[in-house]
Amino acid sequence: MCIEIIRTPAAYSAVADMSPEKSVTADVDGEENLLVPPLNFSMVDYGIFRSGFPDTPNFPFLETLGLRSIIYLCPEPYPEVNIQFLKANGIRLFQFGVEGSKEPFVNIPDDVIRRALKVLLDERNRPLLIHCKRGKHRTGCLVGCLRKWQNWCLASIFDEYQRFAADKARVSDQRFLELFDVSSIKQLTSSDS
Amino acid sequence: MCIEIIRTPAAYSAVADMSPEKSVTADVDGEENLLVPPLNFSMVDYGIFRSGFPDTPNFPFLETLGLRSIIYLCPEPYPEVNIQFLKANGIRLFQFGVEGSKEPFVNIPDDVIRRALKVLLDERNRPLLIHCKRGKHRTGCLVGCLRKWQNWCLASIFDEYQRFAADKARVSDQRFLELFDVSSIKQLTSSDS
Repeated sequence: MCIEIIRTPAAYSAVADMSPEKSVTADVDGEENLLVPPLNFSMVDYGIFRSGFPDTPNFPFLETLGLRSIIYLCPEPYPEVNIQFLKANGIRLFQFGVEGSKEPFVNIPDDVIRRALKVLLDERNRPLLIHCKRGKHRTGCLVGCLRKWQNWCLASIFDEYQRFAADKARVSDQRFLELFDVSSIKQLTSSDS
Repeated sequence: MCIEIIRTPAAYSAVADMSPEKSVTADVDGEENLLVPPLNFSMVDYGIFRSGFPDTPNFPFLETLGLRSIIYLCPEPYPEVNIQFLKANGIRLFQFGVEGSKEPFVNIPDDVIRRALKVLLDERNRPLLIHCKRGKHRTGCLVGCLRKWQNWCLASIFDEYQRFAADKARVSDQRFLELFDVSSIKQLTSSDS
């Protein structure tokens, strides 16, 4: 499932005007404007961010990222307050409904992650934020697939996955990452460029 | 102490030609060229990376980042093999010798971190890598000071610090971050721009 939030041309150009250095900025107004990144927030690569579910207190921080898209990895409908935030900021929502689950009944669907990865690899969608609920398992799997595509060794992919999953790290997710085959996507992206 | 590795004009222009999208690349040659990021590696912000001590197996990965500078936070001399890597890639080394220490005998020197932060905030030094030995305490403190300058709330700064320090997180480092005053640096960077 892919939900597209309609964005106006004005919103597009506002995003296009943003410098890539945008997020390295200081606010000289002091502590009254403290920024609150979402849970488990981190930068993944140029124009790619990851986190847990963003809530209203996180919106001023997210505005500093100049996002063009969000990849949302849960099947639940996006909350109305988040949809309003996306509309106000001209951000497109790509929803890929991956069920949350507990070991041993886990099932990260290869085809859905594959489609999400294609959205992620399309530079026109960046800057983008990947998030699920807590930014551990579903987000960790998609980021891990990106790292496979980037040719990282598995030890480093698992290390990054575990840093965000902490004591909730799952062997099943890491096995999914080990088995995930990026060769067809590599060929595709190679022929695109 | 700040050691500068002389770089040739050719090396400068090679870095200047790099696209900011450089690090999002796939290698279609397959597994024989797997990349090995340094221990505890992560992107911090546009053009800013963090890690533990890079060793020879990490050099091909570091080359993909197109680094201009390294901020090295230990007092020990930089290994010869690392110096050769910097020379070959036209990377400038800024060394700020912060002693490694164990609680309760900890002493993150405010003035040294302040000078390192100024190097970090100078866009001409990016892309840059911050590293110490394991990328937990000294690196975590400098990144935390950057986050204070970026006006992140303390809860989020501590959360990020703890993600990298894991079971070695120190209350003393977090107290240092709480007390670190960025107001003078904010005024300075504000008047610069």
